[in-house]
Amino acid sequence: MIERILILGTGLLGTSTGLALRAAGFTGSITGWDKDPRQSEAALALKAIDTVALNPLDAARKCKLILLSGPVYSILDWMEQLSGVLTAAQLVTDVGSTKTLITEAGNRLFNQPNRAGFLPGHPMAGREVSGAASAEAALFQDAVWIFTSMPDHGTLSFQAGELAASWRHWVEAIGCRTLDLDAARHDELVAWVSHLPQFLSTALTALLQTEVGDAPELTAVGGRALREMTRLGSSPYSMWRDVAYTNTEAIAAAIAALEQRLAHLRENLRTPELRDEFDLANRFRKS
Amino acid sequence: MIERILILGTGLLGTSTGLALRAAGFTGSITGWDKDPRQSEAALALKAIDTVALNPLDAARKCKLILLSGPVYSILDWMEQLSGVLTAAQLVTDVGSTKTLITEAGNRLFNQPNRAGFLPGHPMAGREVSGAASAEAALFQDAVWIFTSMPDHGTLSFQAGELAASWRHWVEAIGCRTLDLDAARHDELVAWVSHLPQFLSTALTALLQTEVGDAPELTAVGGRALREMTRLGSSPYSMWRDVAYTNTEAIAAAIAALEQRLAHLRENLRTPELRDEFDLANRFRKS
Repeated sequence: MIERILILGTGLLGTSTGLALRAAGFTGSITGWDKDPRQSEAALALKAIDTVALNPLDAARKCKLILLSGPVYSILDWMEQLSGVLTAAQLVTDVGSTKTLITEAGNRLFNQPNRAGFLPGHPMAGREVSGAASAEAALFQDAVWIFTSMPDHGTLSFQAGELAASWRHWVEAIGCRTLDLDAARHDELVAWVSHLPQFLSTALTALLQTEVGDAPELTAVGGRALREMTRLGSSPYSMWRDVAYTNTEAIAAAIAALEQRLAHLRENLRTPELRDEFDLANRFRKS
Repeated sequence: MIERILILGTGLLGTSTGLALRAAGFTGSITGWDKDPRQSEAALALKAIDTVALNPLDAARKCKLILLSGPVYSILDWMEQLSGVLTAAQLVTDVGSTKTLITEAGNRLFNQPNRAGFLPGHPMAGREVSGAASAEAALFQDAVWIFTSMPDHGTLSFQAGELAASWRHWVEAIGCRTLDLDAARHDELVAWVSHLPQFLSTALTALLQTEVGDAPELTAVGGRALREMTRLGSSPYSMWRDVAYTNTEAIAAAIAALEQRLAHLRENLRTPELRDEFDLANRFRKS
């Protein structure tokens, strides 16, 4: 049913989606575009897309489904530009990391009479490295791909609704479990399970750079535990700046809670309370 | 030169050492003992040891090299018990996580005229799961095995010195790079690169258990980043209690520094300072 897909933003996630669709048997056309031509050329070379669009808005008019991939503000920019040029027979969807602003914009700019549909999405998959060159067809295997809505949601046209059903089918075909969440609940949840781990790893890694970074022969001592806990320290600011800006309150609350927890543990290094912390942590890992 | 080895404590590290020695071609005898007979039986079944000692002190008298493996206080207990029963032709070494107390005890109880030698050691390898059943011959591959000393060090007898040289050879044979450090410097360094990551992961994981632990279907959303950052949350209290007790000051200082770093990041989620934190973290990962 979806014959032509346009991927706007052929970085890590956009290019991986193209590769995954091909691996899952998608035979329609996949056009791509990126503001950095090296990214779209790399996606083309990997056969994640079969054409690089010359003009992204012209290409969007000709595709049934437009996938927006990139930092949250770049997705919001695309939404503004696309809302006036599409028809009710088209669907726009995205892979943005935070969903309140995007879902609200989707209902305001799309999902209205005679407008294209918008289905807000967020695959819980990624890597600490960005760019088409790091893309993998298997990136989404066993991941959860979340779709979000808001109480004041607009309405998908019949055609856009069919396209949305078809896109959900493809998301499952590339290895994901889908989950529907309220957009605000999504942002609160990912603050705990995705944003907190990221900002924590950035803080730890920046601290280690300050404290022991001048002695790489000593950091080599750390082994697997250190490598794992600092892996996300490689994550690009360009991506996470938009997350920090668009989910500030929930992230700040999660970080503040962790600061308190660390202080509690620090004050109890020699008391039986330390056992309680290990017990709680052990229990999380077993569930 | 080392014909008989006794491993006191056949948990994860003790049993892995036996397996690694066999894989590297050690053909002498390896006797093992553990206060939990299930651990020594498991080590025997895995062929990490070829005999279970009936009486550990009797067995120690008959072995050239005694390897102490387990929580730090269990190693200190063994050192007290062994110091009176061994001769200058024997060497005791260990795999304990903190080294100031053990190195001091080694120089006081051993490394004296007519006493056995003591070589404090610490392989920077481990897993979040304990016990002989989790042992792996490859655990030490590419790890750093640290040996420590103190300014007031005692003296190894000629025979113990030869055994120490031979043990260092075997440590390299099982895949490690050896590194010699002052004991106090070791404890300060591992507070940053090993203990901080562990206590941080415990605090994060305990926090997540409190905040979202009642909804495992939602924690599944987290993906690889969450799994990695909480893996060490499975680590056993029994092991880390001794680390917390024997390196309290350095660990507390490292945790306090991280609390400050997190507060700084939290206060700058919407300022350009956030970029500096990502830049520092990126730099650590590239070095």
